[in-house]
Amino acid sequence: MSKAADSILKHLKVQRQKQRAILKMRWRCAQGGFEFEQLDTFYRAIRPYLCVAQFFGIMPLSNLLSRNPQDVKFKVRSISLGVTGLFLLLGGIKTLVGANVIFNAGLNAKNMVGLVFLIVGIINWLNFVGFARSWSHIMLPWSSLDILMLFPPYKRCKRSLRSRVNLVVITVFCFAIGDHVLYYASGYRSYSMHIKQCQTNHSRITFEHYFEKEFSDIMFLLPYNMFSVCYGFWLNGSFTFLWNFTDIFIVITSIGLAQRFQQFADRVLALEGRHVPDALWYDIRRDHIRLCELTSLVDDSMSNIVFVSCANNVYVICNQALAIFTKLRTPINYVYFWYSLIFLLARTSLVFMTASKIHDTSLLPLKSLYLVPNGHWTQEVQRFANQLTSEFVGLSGYRLYYLTRKSLFGMLATLVTYELMLLQMDAKSPKDLRCT
Amino acid sequence: MSKAADSILKHLKVQRQKQRAILKMRWRCAQGGFEFEQLDTFYRAIRPYLCVAQFFGIMPLSNLLSRNPQDVKFKVRSISLGVTGLFLLLGGIKTLVGANVIFNAGLNAKNMVGLVFLIVGIINWLNFVGFARSWSHIMLPWSSLDILMLFPPYKRCKRSLRSRVNLVVITVFCFAIGDHVLYYASGYRSYSMHIKQCQTNHSRITFEHYFEKEFSDIMFLLPYNMFSVCYGFWLNGSFTFLWNFTDIFIVITSIGLAQRFQQFADRVLALEGRHVPDALWYDIRRDHIRLCELTSLVDDSMSNIVFVSCANNVYVICNQALAIFTKLRTPINYVYFWYSLIFLLARTSLVFMTASKIHDTSLLPLKSLYLVPNGHWTQEVQRFANQLTSEFVGLSGYRLYYLTRKSLFGMLATLVTYELMLLQMDAKSPKDLRCT
Amino acid sequence: MSKAADSILKHLKVQRQKQRAILKMRWRCAQGGFEFEQLDTFYRAIRPYLCVAQFFGIMPLSNLLSRNPQDVKFKVRSISLGVTGLFLLLGGIKTLVGANVIFNAGLNAKNMVGLVFLIVGIINWLNFVGFARSWSHIMLPWSSLDILMLFPPYKRCKRSLRSRVNLVVITVFCFAIGDHVLYYASGYRSYSMHIKQCQTNHSRITFEHYFEKEFSDIMFLLPYNMFSVCYGFWLNGSFTFLWNFTDIFIVITSIGLAQRFQQFADRVLALEGRHVPDALWYDIRRDHIRLCELTSLVDDSMSNIVFVSCANNVYVICNQALAIFTKLRTPINYVYFWYSLIFLLARTSLVFMTASKIHDTSLLPLKSLYLVPNGHWTQEVQRFANQLTSEFVGLSGYRLYYLTRKSLFGMLATLVTYELMLLQMDAKSPKDLRCT
Amino acid sequence: MSKAADSILKHLKVQRQKQRAILKMRWRCAQGGFEFEQLDTFYRAIRPYLCVAQFFGIMPLSNLLSRNPQDVKFKVRSISLGVTGLFLLLGGIKTLVGANVIFNAGLNAKNMVGLVFLIVGIINWLNFVGFARSWSHIMLPWSSLDILMLFPPYKRCKRSLRSRVNLVVITVFCFAIGDHVLYYASGYRSYSMHIKQCQTNHSRITFEHYFEKEFSDIMFLLPYNMFSVCYGFWLNGSFTFLWNFTDIFIVITSIGLAQRFQQFADRVLALEGRHVPDALWYDIRRDHIRLCELTSLVDDSMSNIVFVSCANNVYVICNQALAIFTKLRTPINYVYFWYSLIFLLARTSLVFMTASKIHDTSLLPLKSLYLVPNGHWTQEVQRFANQLTSEFVGLSGYRLYYLTRKSLFGMLATLVTYELMLLQMDAKSPKDLRCT
Repeated sequence: MSKAADSILKHLKVQRQKQRAILKMRWRCAQGGFEFEQLDTFYRAIRPYLCVAQFFGIMPLSNLLSRNPQDVKFKVRSISLGVTGLFLLLGGIKTLVGANVIFNAGLNAKNMVGLVFLIVGIINWLNFVGFARSWSHIMLPWSSLDILMLFPPYKRCKRSLRSRVNLVVITVFCFAIGDHVLYYASGYRSYSMHIKQCQTNHSRITFEHYFEKEFSDIMFLLPYNMFSVCYGFWLNGSFTFLWNFTDIFIVITSIGLAQRFQQFADRVLALEGRHVPDALWYDIRRDHIRLCELTSLVDDSMSNIVFVSCANNVYVICNQALAIFTKLRTPINYVYFWYSLIFLLARTSLVFMTASKIHDTSLLPLKSLYLVPNGHWTQEVQRFANQLTSEFVGLSGYRLYYLTRKSLFGMLATLVTYELMLLQMDAKSPKDLRCT
Repeated sequence: MSKAADSILKHLKVQRQKQRAILKMRWRCAQGGFEFEQLDTFYRAIRPYLCVAQFFGIMPLSNLLSRNPQDVKFKVRSISLGVTGLFLLLGGIKTLVGANVIFNAGLNAKNMVGLVFLIVGIINWLNFVGFARSWSHIMLPWSSLDILMLFPPYKRCKRSLRSRVNLVVITVFCFAIGDHVLYYASGYRSYSMHIKQCQTNHSRITFEHYFEKEFSDIMFLLPYNMFSVCYGFWLNGSFTFLWNFTDIFIVITSIGLAQRFQQFADRVLALEGRHVPDALWYDIRRDHIRLCELTSLVDDSMSNIVFVSCANNVYVICNQALAIFTKLRTPINYVYFWYSLIFLLARTSLVFMTASKIHDTSLLPLKSLYLVPNGHWTQEVQRFANQLTSEFVGLSGYRLYYLTRKSLFGMLATLVTYELMLLQMDAKSPKDLRCT
Repeated sequence: MSKAADSILKHLKVQRQKQRAILKMRWRCAQGGFEFEQLDTFYRAIRPYLCVAQFFGIMPLSNLLSRNPQDVKFKVRSISLGVTGLFLLLGGIKTLVGANVIFNAGLNAKNMVGLVFLIVGIINWLNFVGFARSWSHIMLPWSSLDILMLFPPYKRCKRSLRSRVNLVVITVFCFAIGDHVLYYASGYRSYSMHIKQCQTNHSRITFEHYFEKEFSDIMFLLPYNMFSVCYGFWLNGSFTFLWNFTDIFIVITSIGLAQRFQQFADRVLALEGRHVPDALWYDIRRDHIRLCELTSLVDDSMSNIVFVSCANNVYVICNQALAIFTKLRTPINYVYFWYSLIFLLARTSLVFMTASKIHDTSLLPLKSLYLVPNGHWTQEVQRFANQLTSEFVGLSGYRLYYLTRKSLFGMLATLVTYELMLLQMDAKSPKDLRCT
Repeated sequence: MSKAADSILKHLKVQRQKQRAILKMRWRCAQGGFEFEQLDTFYRAIRPYLCVAQFFGIMPLSNLLSRNPQDVKFKVRSISLGVTGLFLLLGGIKTLVGANVIFNAGLNAKNMVGLVFLIVGIINWLNFVGFARSWSHIMLPWSSLDILMLFPPYKRCKRSLRSRVNLVVITVFCFAIGDHVLYYASGYRSYSMHIKQCQTNHSRITFEHYFEKEFSDIMFLLPYNMFSVCYGFWLNGSFTFLWNFTDIFIVITSIGLAQRFQQFADRVLALEGRHVPDALWYDIRRDHIRLCELTSLVDDSMSNIVFVSCANNVYVICNQALAIFTKLRTPINYVYFWYSLIFLLARTSLVFMTASKIHDTSLLPLKSLYLVPNGHWTQEVQRFANQLTSEFVGLSGYRLYYLTRKSLFGMLATLVTYELMLLQMDAKSPKDLRCT
């Protein structure tokens, strides 16, 4: 008997020691020391991309090199904000020049595309400044939740958050670079074919003349030289980077949140078939509330980014679809057109699918609750079950719509209906290649 | 011991005195005396705008200057109703003349706009007469609820209802006046450009001729002189005022209801973490039922106003969108076109967003209920939680649709789809400025 | 003491006598005697209209003159079915002749309308034969429920079912007759105007020639004389009657069901604030299940009628809307066009609104349940509350859609979107009156 | 007394013997012996069709002739996969040749149809290979569930699963063969009429020339002879078979799942009015969870098949609808056009209706639960009721949409809206038969 008592005492002691060790570790992590740096936190996963974004003036935060998220703040007097200001200025000039040209020529469906692209870029820069301002309000609770959920009783996921994020981001950016390169290649090819077919002066088929046409809004203010061409490439590239970054940013955030909900579901799953005291259910329920509150906080701050991103993607896809039956001039045009359309559709679907994962994983614990045996089904479990189903958890565009599979389907269905109409109109009207 | 008993007795006495004071105050307020006037009631917030509306024959109520809402009633023999009758008569004549002209020329999409504007105006006047008839049935329970919720245990909101309403109304009306002025400016500019381009007799570019064309339905019956021009301005202005007032009225009502639901949510929030007896939960639940019944009562009486307002707004926006790719003649036309389209979109969104706030705030107490500790979770709380989620609380158009963010999104999505179709058609058909 | 006991005994005796009297009365009613005839049953309300329908071969039931619903059955060898067969034969010939003409000329959007009208008529006749076959399976439970709910504890409604039904039916039929008369008037006017404008031989403007054109499918087989014209009028009238009857039938059924749910809600409301034993709640719940089962039974049998009716109405409305901007020839054409469009919209809305009332009234008891005091809130009440919200109660078209306000709004929204497209197309294309 | 005890003992003994016999039988069945073969399992119902599918390289499984589902596996080195590979190769060549021709001529709405048909075929073959790989993971739990539910306490359905499946499949395939034959008949007739009207050289109206045109993509690589014509017929037929098989496969699976849910509902219904111990409710609830898990497993594996099938059907229907007002040349064209359109609509509706039956039958036990008497309503029953309503049970296309009646209605409504637009356009534009 004394032996059994001994072993129990030992066991309790070991457990207490473990818990104390975990608490100590958490405390050290919360101090933001080296231990924190080692953790697979969301901050660690997103930091490299935020650093890259600084070079394009996106999300102006200072002290990004610090490993402690508490140091990272939005400061009015900082280099980052200066860079953002520069981009806003240069982008603004480009936009104004473009708008001027278009309004003089008469706004129409075709020339509007370029202008909308620029305006959306400017809005995105401003939205990210807004998000940067609320950065510290979001990152502090998120980091503390990360610290909480990276130690037992929560288990770490097999694949770290960091590697998941890296995989997705690098894949998307490779395709995005391909898209950008093809854009210039296809543009130059179109230009040279156009000259060949419609003009007699074939000497105009040079890179110089192409750049003059491509960057006409810049050449409007600057003389043509090596510098202004580079400047044109750089500004165009920045807008394109921003466009891709917006979607990528939503995807990263969604992965970060979904991973935590997954861990939460795993913990509940691990309790299956075991006797769980009410106090533990209460702890679990409290953690769930914290997770939901974090998601809701992120949703509030990101709503404008999500809204603009989705609206813009839908607009560009529809615009591309407009040209689906146009007879294009050269194979490279075909390749660019289809590559770009499919890339866009895939990226938009990626945004919706990863974001919808937050909601899907948030519902997973429900299945485990079904299997709670009858004797252990208390009011606390009942409340937890109700809580799980009563609210929508996930990202939204101003709560006008939620990023779910259903919304994605609605969007696709609308696109298909639209395309069907084009099919119909195409079947009735003749097509030709005009020299305009 | 006696000391402790003493202090408890004192405390109880003070509390009883407080309660008695509150009851007394409430009683005095219910008498509609000077005390009531000081309260931040809905009646006090909306009264100034109702007074202004009397001058345009909208919502004919008598005794509006009284500070007691019980005195304000709909009377058949009153000056207000006379004014309304005058507007209905003059507006009716204008509408009939307009309808006659249009049916002779053949009804089409373009000339229909003006006629619909007039008919909707007439319907709105009649709807407001109907609302005025049920005014006292709504205002009495509302005022008593106001009296209930402007004293403890309810806390007043930081910003008073009156200041909120004033801010919104004045902002909207300033923009509305700008819209109205731009309408005439753009109209005159269009007219003069049209004469210049299509006619040789440039002497017709005078204000006189412009007014003759603008108010052609009035000049049809009256000779041209200063008076008839003023009359034209005044009647046009009244219709425009009515149009704006309809939306504003929905917004004010929504703010009024949402504020009460907010106070209610704040009270439930204040109970977080405290032991709450069942009797108190029952009181809270009863207050919630009263709030919901008031909302339902208001919804029933306002359904026709909401329905006509939304239908008309959507129609006008679609009609504007029709002209989005028309090449306009002058900068002032562009400014008016975009100003008016954005103003309309913003006003419609404002209606939906404020109205959707009623529902959103009505759901807020749910989050507090999640945090009720396990021991205090009784059947009464359970029923309260069920009650909160079981019904839709808010304004609707005959319950065919509800004013929510989701509906707004549906409307916007339809508009965008429609606009996309225009994009497509625009890309296929040539445009020109015709002299018709 | 003995006095009190006496009075209690007396009271109990009186009550028992009352209950026995009610049971006796119910029994006598169930025998279908004179007492049943006096009751405000659904059978009594619909019988006159079924009798009228027999003359048009709709819903072939025998023994309709009997006052006992048990006698009314579908018989294969009956005069009613013979009449139906005659109509199917004559209507079928008309349809085949019409189809032949149209397929020879080439099917298009315009000439399809008439053919669809005929085909839908034939389908409706067959659907009503199908409904007649399941008539006795529906009417028996319905009548027994009627007997149950026309005695205490249920209270009768103020306005009897019969008077409600009569009011609606007579109103609709008056408008329908107006519509039918205007159809011929407008048709003749169009015909004469067409001859005047496009042909030199004005002698053709006679009734004779008009009838020859109007009933061309009949004149294809029969020689022109008084009889064949009357036959043409009669057959056309029958199809039109059937079309109106289909909608009217759905409306009557909906009113009948909604009235019972209203009585049920009134009974639950009467229990507000009283102590209700569980046994009584169980009785109430069982009655609710019976009501829901009846509704579900009716829905199953009527689904095809509802589906065809809605589909056809939407189709005809859209077709009318197609012509909304066509410049019509004469005022009578305008009057007919708008009268017929508005009548159709109103009738369709009436169908949806009355049918949606079934669901709305089925939810009414929920509000009474909120006010059940805490002590009396038992599991039985909880189950009743759950039951009320868990299922949809009402009519549907094969459960593909339900007749609710929301569906009506969806339909209207689609119509409006469609109309907007027409607006757009109309604004782009010229219109003219062709002599074809 | 001893007699009664005796009879009870006997009764218990008999019951125990029965249970043991059932367990023994189940065990033997699970071994996959002759007994298993006799059971009305899903595997037995679908096997003949899988065998037929092998000849077309669909769903490459080995050992399909074995009566034990455990032997049927996906093997990389098998004849079945070889056949599939052959079809993919030949189909791929056909597709590439077709794509080459079309891209050279310029992609448009009309010639896209054929290409999409081929590409969808290739995707379907690949999807079925994917499904075959997860076949054993699905069939094992399904077979064990079948064994469980084909013995008491579950009752067998009146009509066996096998006969139901056979009836549906044979009906659909007969119509499909009719469709295929009419396709060639109509094609040949169109071809000969085209030659007659547009060319002088009428000697070209031979089968030989028709086949050369019909199988132009094959004649592109092979010389014209008997063999290549047969090859053309065979490859075309395979693609058509695959297209029909995809839908049929979804239908069979749905029938199989719905039947089990029906049996489950019947079992719960049989308990109505009896005292049911909590342990039995728990068993029932566990069976329900198993059924739901199986459905969810099937849904996950079939999502891509469902998605491609629905998308393709909708696309083809819309494309057919495009031609609804085209004046066709001969009666056989009309017959083929309408036959094929109605067949397609009916097949698509069949897919949706049978699949929606899974969800409908899964909700049936709810009605039985309403009738559980008050005393027997325990927490276990409450949880069962909650479980029934909390989740969607059924097939879906990547959970973007679910196969329900509502989705079918949404699809039909979109089609109708689309058709309405065509109506409108048709009414405005002239039609003619061109010789192109």
